[in-house]
Amino acid sequence: MNEENLAYNLIRELYQKKLKISTAESCTGGLISKMITDVSGASNVFECGICSYSDDIKQKILNVKAETLKNYTAVSAWTAIEMADGVRKLSGSDIAISSTGFAGPKVAGCTDLVGLVYIGISLKNLKKTLKLELYRGIDDDRDFIRNQAAQRAIQLALE
Amino acid sequence: MNEENLAYNLIRELYQKKLKISTAESCTGGLISKMITDVSGASNVFECGICSYSDDIKQKILNVKAETLKNYTAVSAWTAIEMADGVRKLSGSDIAISSTGFAGPKVAGCTDLVGLVYIGISLKNLKKTLKLELYRGIDDDRDFIRNQAAQRAIQLALE
Repeated sequence: MNEENLAYNLIRELYQKKLKISTAESCTGGLISKMITDVSGASNVFECGICSYSDDIKQKILNVKAETLKNYTAVSAWTAIEMADGVRKLSGSDIAISSTGFAGPKVAGCTDLVGLVYIGISLKNLKKTLKLELYRGIDDDRDFIRNQAAQRAIQLALE
Repeated sequence: MNEENLAYNLIRELYQKKLKISTAESCTGGLISKMITDVSGASNVFECGICSYSDDIKQKILNVKAETLKNYTAVSAWTAIEMADGVRKLSGSDIAISSTGFAGPKVAGCTDLVGLVYIGISLKNLKKTLKLELYRGIDDDRDFIRNQAAQRAIQLALE
């Protein structure tokens, strides 16, 4: 299923089930909420999206614990879950998805973890994470990693 | 200047001036923060983006006043300024941009204001709004309106 169909199907499912969604993004930088709101009618099911690019914002707005960031770093399954939990509670929505990872590019002296992304999903009675390794070592990897991560997040919500 | 160059130039300018930026989006749905974070290195200058699709979120997270929404509606210069002010203060960034408007599509019985968008900008000592009328009455208007609004917001920040 392509990007447009994924978002369209997600919105239709949520609308039929009378559920609201929100997003908390780091490495995808707003791309998930952009994909969702590309679909006309998204306002019926989409509450809010928080793009938190710094640890400080993750703590202050999304209520990610300082210990989580210290013990597991921002790019971890634990942070992904706390981000999703945070925006779900903040917005009062039924379901929330999050992304945190290294989109790259790979530069000398920096992390060799480019392409590692955690997707988080939070419902009242279900928490789930998905670990993605998207590094291909080619030129447009940053776009590829962000796009793949956003699509997989929407797909996970759909499932 | 095209979309990529606009965002790239904005990030370069902010980096040279050691300034941080944040965004508060309604009708552009995350597209402004997506365009900014498309640029590698955006994490040096981009603090956070709030995509607030409902009045409730505008009040709760961005601190937009209930009276502003009641007296002028969500699609107004006043709301645009309060959204930008709200995210600037929340994130502690130096500059913030916002968008609020009707991206469409135009449907029977609904607003005839499709294409009306207000861009807001907030710095400590400067507030500014820009009113855009982007309706063309053709098929891909929703994408066009959102793209134009996001680009004009980035351009305004650059100026």
